[in-house]
Amino acid sequence: MSTKTSHMPIFKRRESNARSYCRGFDTVFSTASGAEMTDTAGRTYIDFLAGCSSLNYGHNDPDMKTALIEHISGDGVTHGLDMHTEAKGAFIETFEEHVLRPRAMDHKLMFVGPTGANAVEAAMKIARKSTGRTNIIAFTNGFHGVTQGALAATGNGYHRGGAGTALNDVTRLPYDGYMGTDVDTSDLLRAMLEDPSSGMDAPAAILLETVQGEGGLNAASADWITSIAKLARKHGALLIIDDIQAGCGRTGSFFSFDDMGITPDIVTLAKSVSGFGLPMGLVLVRPEHDVMGPAEHNGTFRGNTHAFVTARVAIEKFWSDERLKADIERRASLIEDGLRTIAGMVPGAYLKGRGMMRGVDVGSGELAGEICAHAFDKGLIVETSGSDDEVVKILAPLTIPDALLEKGLNVLIDAAQSVTSQTTIAAE
Amino acid sequence: MSTKTSHMPIFKRRESNARSYCRGFDTVFSTASGAEMTDTAGRTYIDFLAGCSSLNYGHNDPDMKTALIEHISGDGVTHGLDMHTEAKGAFIETFEEHVLRPRAMDHKLMFVGPTGANAVEAAMKIARKSTGRTNIIAFTNGFHGVTQGALAATGNGYHRGGAGTALNDVTRLPYDGYMGTDVDTSDLLRAMLEDPSSGMDAPAAILLETVQGEGGLNAASADWITSIAKLARKHGALLIIDDIQAGCGRTGSFFSFDDMGITPDIVTLAKSVSGFGLPMGLVLVRPEHDVMGPAEHNGTFRGNTHAFVTARVAIEKFWSDERLKADIERRASLIEDGLRTIAGMVPGAYLKGRGMMRGVDVGSGELAGEICAHAFDKGLIVETSGSDDEVVKILAPLTIPDALLEKGLNVLIDAAQSVTSQTTIAAE
Amino acid sequence: MSTKTSHMPIFKRRESNARSYCRGFDTVFSTASGAEMTDTAGRTYIDFLAGCSSLNYGHNDPDMKTALIEHISGDGVTHGLDMHTEAKGAFIETFEEHVLRPRAMDHKLMFVGPTGANAVEAAMKIARKSTGRTNIIAFTNGFHGVTQGALAATGNGYHRGGAGTALNDVTRLPYDGYMGTDVDTSDLLRAMLEDPSSGMDAPAAILLETVQGEGGLNAASADWITSIAKLARKHGALLIIDDIQAGCGRTGSFFSFDDMGITPDIVTLAKSVSGFGLPMGLVLVRPEHDVMGPAEHNGTFRGNTHAFVTARVAIEKFWSDERLKADIERRASLIEDGLRTIAGMVPGAYLKGRGMMRGVDVGSGELAGEICAHAFDKGLIVETSGSDDEVVKILAPLTIPDALLEKGLNVLIDAAQSVTSQTTIAAE
Amino acid sequence: MSTKTSHMPIFKRRESNARSYCRGFDTVFSTASGAEMTDTAGRTYIDFLAGCSSLNYGHNDPDMKTALIEHISGDGVTHGLDMHTEAKGAFIETFEEHVLRPRAMDHKLMFVGPTGANAVEAAMKIARKSTGRTNIIAFTNGFHGVTQGALAATGNGYHRGGAGTALNDVTRLPYDGYMGTDVDTSDLLRAMLEDPSSGMDAPAAILLETVQGEGGLNAASADWITSIAKLARKHGALLIIDDIQAGCGRTGSFFSFDDMGITPDIVTLAKSVSGFGLPMGLVLVRPEHDVMGPAEHNGTFRGNTHAFVTARVAIEKFWSDERLKADIERRASLIEDGLRTIAGMVPGAYLKGRGMMRGVDVGSGELAGEICAHAFDKGLIVETSGSDDEVVKILAPLTIPDALLEKGLNVLIDAAQSVTSQTTIAAE
Repeated sequence: MSTKTSHMPIFKRRESNARSYCRGFDTVFSTASGAEMTDTAGRTYIDFLAGCSSLNYGHNDPDMKTALIEHISGDGVTHGLDMHTEAKGAFIETFEEHVLRPRAMDHKLMFVGPTGANAVEAAMKIARKSTGRTNIIAFTNGFHGVTQGALAATGNGYHRGGAGTALNDVTRLPYDGYMGTDVDTSDLLRAMLEDPSSGMDAPAAILLETVQGEGGLNAASADWITSIAKLARKHGALLIIDDIQAGCGRTGSFFSFDDMGITPDIVTLAKSVSGFGLPMGLVLVRPEHDVMGPAEHNGTFRGNTHAFVTARVAIEKFWSDERLKADIERRASLIEDGLRTIAGMVPGAYLKGRGMMRGVDVGSGELAGEICAHAFDKGLIVETSGSDDEVVKILAPLTIPDALLEKGLNVLIDAAQSVTSQTTIAAE
Repeated sequence: MSTKTSHMPIFKRRESNARSYCRGFDTVFSTASGAEMTDTAGRTYIDFLAGCSSLNYGHNDPDMKTALIEHISGDGVTHGLDMHTEAKGAFIETFEEHVLRPRAMDHKLMFVGPTGANAVEAAMKIARKSTGRTNIIAFTNGFHGVTQGALAATGNGYHRGGAGTALNDVTRLPYDGYMGTDVDTSDLLRAMLEDPSSGMDAPAAILLETVQGEGGLNAASADWITSIAKLARKHGALLIIDDIQAGCGRTGSFFSFDDMGITPDIVTLAKSVSGFGLPMGLVLVRPEHDVMGPAEHNGTFRGNTHAFVTARVAIEKFWSDERLKADIERRASLIEDGLRTIAGMVPGAYLKGRGMMRGVDVGSGELAGEICAHAFDKGLIVETSGSDDEVVKILAPLTIPDALLEKGLNVLIDAAQSVTSQTTIAAE
Repeated sequence: MSTKTSHMPIFKRRESNARSYCRGFDTVFSTASGAEMTDTAGRTYIDFLAGCSSLNYGHNDPDMKTALIEHISGDGVTHGLDMHTEAKGAFIETFEEHVLRPRAMDHKLMFVGPTGANAVEAAMKIARKSTGRTNIIAFTNGFHGVTQGALAATGNGYHRGGAGTALNDVTRLPYDGYMGTDVDTSDLLRAMLEDPSSGMDAPAAILLETVQGEGGLNAASADWITSIAKLARKHGALLIIDDIQAGCGRTGSFFSFDDMGITPDIVTLAKSVSGFGLPMGLVLVRPEHDVMGPAEHNGTFRGNTHAFVTARVAIEKFWSDERLKADIERRASLIEDGLRTIAGMVPGAYLKGRGMMRGVDVGSGELAGEICAHAFDKGLIVETSGSDDEVVKILAPLTIPDALLEKGLNVLIDAAQSVTSQTTIAAE
Repeated sequence: MSTKTSHMPIFKRRESNARSYCRGFDTVFSTASGAEMTDTAGRTYIDFLAGCSSLNYGHNDPDMKTALIEHISGDGVTHGLDMHTEAKGAFIETFEEHVLRPRAMDHKLMFVGPTGANAVEAAMKIARKSTGRTNIIAFTNGFHGVTQGALAATGNGYHRGGAGTALNDVTRLPYDGYMGTDVDTSDLLRAMLEDPSSGMDAPAAILLETVQGEGGLNAASADWITSIAKLARKHGALLIIDDIQAGCGRTGSFFSFDDMGITPDIVTLAKSVSGFGLPMGLVLVRPEHDVMGPAEHNGTFRGNTHAFVTARVAIEKFWSDERLKADIERRASLIEDGLRTIAGMVPGAYLKGRGMMRGVDVGSGELAGEICAHAFDKGLIVETSGSDDEVVKILAPLTIPDALLEKGLNVLIDAAQSVTSQTTIAAE
């Protein structure tokens, strides 16, 4: 099709400077399936980015695809505001059966505007309304979105700078490991909570990711998270786990906090919750904090019916038994091996992350960027993360076949080899 | 299917109190086509709400449906972050050809998180960054979304109350007509802009809807809008037209400000821009204000590829000629007649709105609510709007067949007749 | 004394650029008595500025002076934090007897840091704590101080710009007369208060000056003030009258709102409350709103004991009978005559203010400034006011002898004559 | 005099609940001299509070008293706004000669409203304007005043709660020692400053007290202060030393940071700067940051002429040679001995502070309060400090005769003995 080759000019002519990923992956994609994307020139790429963890089950999963086409063909409701629809009902039932009941979670489902940021905004509002407090504690390197409320909780200075106004009502504290291995940063939180003159106003909530995806794949320890959870409980603050990137299986089980013995008051989900890459946001909130009145946090797209269709299939297919968990564990191990090889090429490099949310800190954003660029040239989509983009990050679909995963890892290893050799040569 | 009847308990058991429309329209919908929705019991309703103007072309338009199924069947990219995709390129080309070029608009397209609120947040950030100012002028009864930045610009007290924290950096001024017909409220804006001691800080932007959808279908005059546009230009503020509800044909032409002789610096679109009811947000920004850096305003779902597919078809089908405009004009006239009949039943009632964004102010939210409830009992989905929900609002699909429109209007007239008779009897 | 002539270099060398009045009145003052100030060169000036209404009883009133010297000589407490002191007790008793009881005011006296801004900050905090609301309504051209809380309520853009951060939690509304004589701006306030979607959050307080001193001597009508007072009461907002500049007799009686039939919930006083020009701040608050806990609004200098000594004498001497009121009325009339003469020289000029808080708007800050500069050359200290410094403002001591007042007025008239003649000549 | 005994009812009847010190020291004071205050009943108290360090040179110093009476008798200007006065010139000359020049400080003097809070507000505004940044870093347990800007920097929760609105644009970090002796908290500041995703916006200033007076007499080490100063310099933030309580000799030399090798960009002074307990605020600012325009930070009482008279005498008398420094060192040693005795009575008690700004942490506010109450019964005015008022704090006049100091210390020791004996008995 002639249009295929002619798209580039239109992007340059009419798309805003705000566009980003397309800059690093400078081609026009047309189709995608499983763990691979194909561009208009017919070239196929292994996808180690997976929509930033929005495609945990890969592209165009055949079962979700079939269900969605059937829904559309039958004139199933596409847009129903937040009216009751059959598709929504079926999703909630499935989510209750396979996700909530097995964990004895009594949370309500609040459908919000279909973005992660909207889920975070809703969570912050719930916490403030429920407690009557305004302050929310967030952590260094946390990333929660770029709308004004969520952005206040986000640590990234580049994004904060885009606000053009003060970002307030958030207290920033050091995340687990931020002050080195000898300091338990939850001690600082405890001291400030217990000290009436610490200058930290009583918090409505403590908001955290168990693994900081954008912040550099920093994985907090279960001990630290448990300490934080206890402090939240003791001091009347809600515990909000932002599981937008780390949830939906990314770290090995459905929630990233499974098996830690905590029950967050609020959980935010988005990215992979629809299963198919369709926009969807979801807030889980314990009944006693389900305080938003009807439409108090409203929005036109709360309840993307197409997303409900695929989300239901995703839960049924992947979370009604233990198979995916076992797959993730095995694949995580493959990834770890691959990253370890890369780490061996760069003095001071070290592994980061947990489950299939893994990366290697190569010490500089420049080096990490070059590795990713080389990998893309060789047919692999992979991105960086971290304060200085110094982490090469792998977010492959959880369902990627082992062979394809290994193939991708080899591309990445070769890219790293190639880049580090050049660097070494240049240095000599 | 047994599930169909069993959905009600799951909503009560697991869906958050924040759910809203489902309360007034207390059934479970399963399919929808054109201007009608059908519930699981097989009952069909005429839809005068149209997803709050998100379904301007009706439910499941056959051409968009075909294109979307074809895209999905062929493993077209579903989720591509903001990478270049064929579907996105084709949409931009079509949008440029049929919307921007005919109006000599040089705006860039910035794809944002797929909600209207996200588009407004982006617009506010752009204005603040581009001008280096923080204050944004918004108007009484304006509604721009409920995330923290957008909520600051929103007038509705119920929604503002949900923030749980102060909403700042916005100056509120009276909208056109707010101080009665004798006062041109743009004079107050002018006075405050020109007075260095007015207490109004220099504005980054003036943000307005040409017709306030949620605020009660208040339609500003072209003169007033032109005055505001001139003041914005003169005082270095960007003019942001929030066309999320009033745009995409709702008032008679694609943009609600067409033919007013103004060129907004920024236009926000969402709701009907995808054509099919799929989540999509879009900001149009003049090149000199396209100042957000790569990913500075980021988000996972900037670029819902399915929405691009249907949005392209929508533009091609409805905006490549003048037919829809003529249809809207004719249908608007039918709606006006119907509403005039209702206004005749209620002392003091009067018509509001413009194009197919019309309503009747019946003086009290209680009365308006009863009319809508009666109408729903008779098979019509219709909602209220306004500060006290005192306006019965019609947002029928622009494509509704005239006969079905008249049928719906008759249901509404009967409902009004029924409610007002009872009221009269009760009063006697 | 040689130092006298050598002071100029030290000011230039070491005093901050923030210094201001000394720029217009470019000499070094050493002594002052009654309505006159004398510089180190021995030149005497008539004082029509009176410390911006801080010296309503003139400089170094002999009775206050005697009492103060006696207090100091006898080792009376100078600084007692906010402990009970004899001097404080005596002041409160006098203030109760001559000011509060005759007006049946049950207000408590809250001693605050010795500045007007501190009194305003305290008043805003009281209103917020007492109502549990945050929004405070202030008016165009209002001036309430430059510390961050008070500055948010101040309209002046130059001063606001000095904050370097957003000034929030205040809604700005047009003052009486701001939209011309045909519009009662209290109608806009009413509409916004009654409209739940106006975007104005429920106010903790309405804060206003009855005559805006810095804002250009805008005098609100008693009708407008009464309307505002009623709206405050009806909507649960506290009425705060900032009587810092207009109070202590400046407009003709002790409070500027006497005889208007209103009882403010809070009154702020400073400037002339000590009588002698000594720093003192005072908040009057009705018992039901006396909600600041012990030291909750604290400060080292709450209770300037020297100020208590002179303030007591001031009240006893000037407010135990009606003589001063009669004097003010007569002198106000003399001032009005003088200003009318000046207004006659400038096309479009008009009189402003009330009581002995009067001025003439000559249409431009440049012209007003030149008149004041000429006057100073001729031995008269007089200043401008207003958004563009376009008002020549007279704030002579209330106690100025009539002859001296007339002498000063003649200097001012001559200065205006001289400046306007030159302007006319230049224009020809 | 009959009034003397009759004052108590007027305080109860008319003084606001906000009154505080008078509650603990429940008598009416009339005269004061040196380190002693006398009440209306003729009882004399040793003053270990000294106006919270506002009376570093004692009450009614004879030389200042003589100069002030002479000034008043001669009709010296009392109130001159910020015009040049002879008294101001003489003060600046003296301050330059004895304070600034010996330290090679090129700072300008900015006279602000006569409170410490006003000085802090001015300092924060200067830093924000000079750097174009809004964020200000303050520390746990810092106390900087209760007007809105200063209160945002203050740690005390009771005072913060009085704001009734959000306190923003300040980042709170742990003060020296806050995380125990093993953690250098400046490392956290460094990490956050160097990490672009720490969530801490680039700071306009770092604001600190070298000894936290209200916060519990926490004395930062010179090393820590030097680290902070270097970080400020490196990251473009101004260093503001709030020397309001610790300055003017309290810690042993004029400035509390003398001999630390740092030059703060801004120093705030108040309390003892007038020498006599008269209200005065002063900001020292380096010329390159003297960015407030004329009157941009204005106020009626910027320049309390009486305070200039006594401040000049104070500088000349006490800071033109080394005698007072030697006295302070000797007296500090006496105080330390006394406090050590008290610490020996309470398990876990330990000494705090530096110079003549000393206290003993007795572990509980209740105990500390009882000790102070007993001491007052025995004729000693002494107060507590700290997050939980757990520190018995001694702020005696620097000029207190050694014998009187020892007498006072003995009263305090006896009070502690008495209270701890009772406690021990009660516990048995």
